[in-house]
Amino acid sequence: MKDRHQTTSHEIERYAGLFAKRTRQMRSSAMRDLMAITARPDVISLAGGLPDTASFPPETFAALTDRIARESCAAALQYGPTEGFDATKSRIVEVMAAEGMRADPDDMVVTTGGQQVIDLITKTLIDPGDVVICEAPTYPGAVPTFSSYEADVIQIEMDSDGMRVDLLEETLERLDRDGRRPKFIYTVPTFQNPAGVTLSAPRRQRLVEIARERELLVLEDNPYGLLRYEGEPLSPLYAIDGGEYVLYLGTFSKILSPGIRLGWVCAPAPVLAKVKLGKQAADLCTSSLTQFLVDAYFDEGVWRRYVSDLCAIYRQRRDAMLDALAEFFPREAEWTQPSGGLFIWATLPEFIDTGDLLAKALREERVAFVPGSAAYVDGRGGSSMRLNFSGANVNEIVEGIRRIGKVVDEQMALFSTFVKKNSGDSASGIAGSGRDDVSDSQSSSEPMADVVELPRRRDERRAQGS
Amino acid sequence: MKDRHQTTSHEIERYAGLFAKRTRQMRSSAMRDLMAITARPDVISLAGGLPDTASFPPETFAALTDRIARESCAAALQYGPTEGFDATKSRIVEVMAAEGMRADPDDMVVTTGGQQVIDLITKTLIDPGDVVICEAPTYPGAVPTFSSYEADVIQIEMDSDGMRVDLLEETLERLDRDGRRPKFIYTVPTFQNPAGVTLSAPRRQRLVEIARERELLVLEDNPYGLLRYEGEPLSPLYAIDGGEYVLYLGTFSKILSPGIRLGWVCAPAPVLAKVKLGKQAADLCTSSLTQFLVDAYFDEGVWRRYVSDLCAIYRQRRDAMLDALAEFFPREAEWTQPSGGLFIWATLPEFIDTGDLLAKALREERVAFVPGSAAYVDGRGGSSMRLNFSGANVNEIVEGIRRIGKVVDEQMALFSTFVKKNSGDSASGIAGSGRDDVSDSQSSSEPMADVVELPRRRDERRAQGS
Repeated sequence: MKDRHQTTSHEIERYAGLFAKRTRQMRSSAMRDLMAITARPDVISLAGGLPDTASFPPETFAALTDRIARESCAAALQYGPTEGFDATKSRIVEVMAAEGMRADPDDMVVTTGGQQVIDLITKTLIDPGDVVICEAPTYPGAVPTFSSYEADVIQIEMDSDGMRVDLLEETLERLDRDGRRPKFIYTVPTFQNPAGVTLSAPRRQRLVEIARERELLVLEDNPYGLLRYEGEPLSPLYAIDGGEYVLYLGTFSKILSPGIRLGWVCAPAPVLAKVKLGKQAADLCTSSLTQFLVDAYFDEGVWRRYVSDLCAIYRQRRDAMLDALAEFFPREAEWTQPSGGLFIWATLPEFIDTGDLLAKALREERVAFVPGSAAYVDGRGGSSMRLNFSGANVNEIVEGIRRIGKVVDEQMALFSTFVKKNSGDSASGIAGSGRDDVSDSQSSSEPMADVVELPRRRDERRAQGS
Repeated sequence: MKDRHQTTSHEIERYAGLFAKRTRQMRSSAMRDLMAITARPDVISLAGGLPDTASFPPETFAALTDRIARESCAAALQYGPTEGFDATKSRIVEVMAAEGMRADPDDMVVTTGGQQVIDLITKTLIDPGDVVICEAPTYPGAVPTFSSYEADVIQIEMDSDGMRVDLLEETLERLDRDGRRPKFIYTVPTFQNPAGVTLSAPRRQRLVEIARERELLVLEDNPYGLLRYEGEPLSPLYAIDGGEYVLYLGTFSKILSPGIRLGWVCAPAPVLAKVKLGKQAADLCTSSLTQFLVDAYFDEGVWRRYVSDLCAIYRQRRDAMLDALAEFFPREAEWTQPSGGLFIWATLPEFIDTGDLLAKALREERVAFVPGSAAYVDGRGGSSMRLNFSGANVNEIVEGIRRIGKVVDEQMALFSTFVKKNSGDSASGIAGSGRDDVSDSQSSSEPMADVVELPRRRDERRAQGS
């Protein structure tokens, strides 16, 4: 057998002729590529979206699996039904009820993580060239999925109250005039990935109204809803709509474990029937073993306490990151102030390319983040970055932000003379750019370019540990 | 929230306008639908492809998961790399070596079961209308996957030596004249699902030669290779080719557990790069937890003994089924004699529709099988059936075949007068039909329509228990 690691150009050509057209549009999710690099122990990664699985008690895990061994080993090792076990669905009903939704087990399919829901819904609805509408920026992991079905992705700007529903309506009008009807609107309304902002209550109402008026489907992706660190929960779109036009994506990844790859979709019967066919074709059924684990876990009745433990941990880490940003990022930077979830979205002056910055940060300072362009389909977001505060401890977060700040300062110094000389209007350019719509201002009517002066809480943070 | 279980026709219409074109071709795998019905405890199911997970020792399961709890709980609950953990890949190298393959961990992606490999390879290679070549009959679970990518599936007849490679060449010539190049050939060369036959050594050589001469990819699906009950193993296509044109699909489903949803694909670097992108978009990564379970299991060093235990169990069950077929099926029926795997393919006289037969068998006798048409894309296979002997014990198998035999006898009696009156040549019709190519004769040159007189081993079987 020859050494296939030295792929010759002839070889690449040989196979390239066989590839499906969709592969031309398929590109890697920046996050996933970064995970490989950032797995090195000397790198501080603020790039992933990793929950803190170390906080899950190993003795609980052992107790759950021992119970499976005693009670249902053969069934846990066997194939299961395509749509998932009834027991899993009952647990999902319980989780959704905790967020104010009344869900029906017959409206669900249990999936191989939440990501598979995006894949199956896109597979069900999208022909090449069909329109999907999503937020700007959007979940970076959704971009490769939409691309793999050759969707035409249109992104709607956000501000601190989430998707600009007024701009959505304008876009729908424009599409209507062109005779195009979007197949669905993809949104992460609560503690958005990557921006960390939350769709306001009035906009939720309006978004559901728009969907109903225009008979449009909405895919509500809600992995973080239960990870709220302050304030009162807002109704999910699914609860407002009643499940007619809003499809719901849930996951156990952020409230229990992503390593079990368990998510779910709720959808109206005709859509669900197609999703089931897609699921059969994709992977037959979701892991029985991990479904049994979830069932045993929920039976213990400790899941809400674990979520509340996670919230306490993540709240500290978020605060530490906000403090560190205030301390180590330049005056010209701005960032969002999430009330929950896992991410902060930071935007630097326009002349900084966060892709280049990442290369430098990894090489010189051994720190990683997700460059903003991964959250856009059109190359925008180039001076923004997604920062994760759930996967690193407080010390790592502070040190990580310090290191990024250092690299940013160097880039700022390097470019400042050039900027002054060549683009005198750069300040207003930054202010006016779409990137700044995602700001940390408390009201969407505030000017977006304002640099945010956050309260410094270094002493609080120092007491936190983690 | 209104009761969505009463789907109105307006509702179906409303959503139907949004569905992608591919959904028109998507249909359910008969096996999966059957699983729901046959989960009822009073039904004897010979329909599924369920391994005997009850034979896996629960105490081993408990020991493995306890070890994960102690040594690697946080990592097992966390996201993993898209391509799978290095530890899993080392175990895959070990499994493939046991079948005479030298595999390189860098050539692999760990997948959510073997089914996902079929999905990812089809996604990578197939545009709507592109040709996939597979066996006639083919794995029923592959049909919905090919359909979901709108492939043009061309099926090549088999005989007791597997795919008729001479017919494959004729088909390739014909396609060539039409200016069409198949994107890949999908084959289950060893203990084929559903036919139970094995591609002979000379045909393996020739198939690989054809692939290399024509620069065609072959997807070798090999879930059952280690489940051999007699005779000497043949080289997998992957070993013959060296991994240049042959892509390899492996799975832990049949040697450990399907409930852990763990499979893998080996492919040349350019193909693998696309598969990885497809995997990211589909479900990000394969379950870390179940990968850690496999690693711990293989570390115990008992996997070969478990496979050999499984072989002993399945050998008994196969023998029981062959005996029962000889006893309870009519003279006009024929069936294959697999040397391994999970399935026997039985063909009844042409005038019997096994779809109708299944309805009757379920209703009147509470027994299930997979109707043959599920293994064809064009409605053929209508008088054949797939019979599984791994998922039921010996008593259930004998009773199940007795019940099917009873329903067949009734159908035969019902139709015999009609057949004699209206189709005097039905016997030769059966003999000449494609279905009969899959026979149990030891040589492909034997006439296919011969009714097989199998040695009756009732006394042996009675001693077996299980």
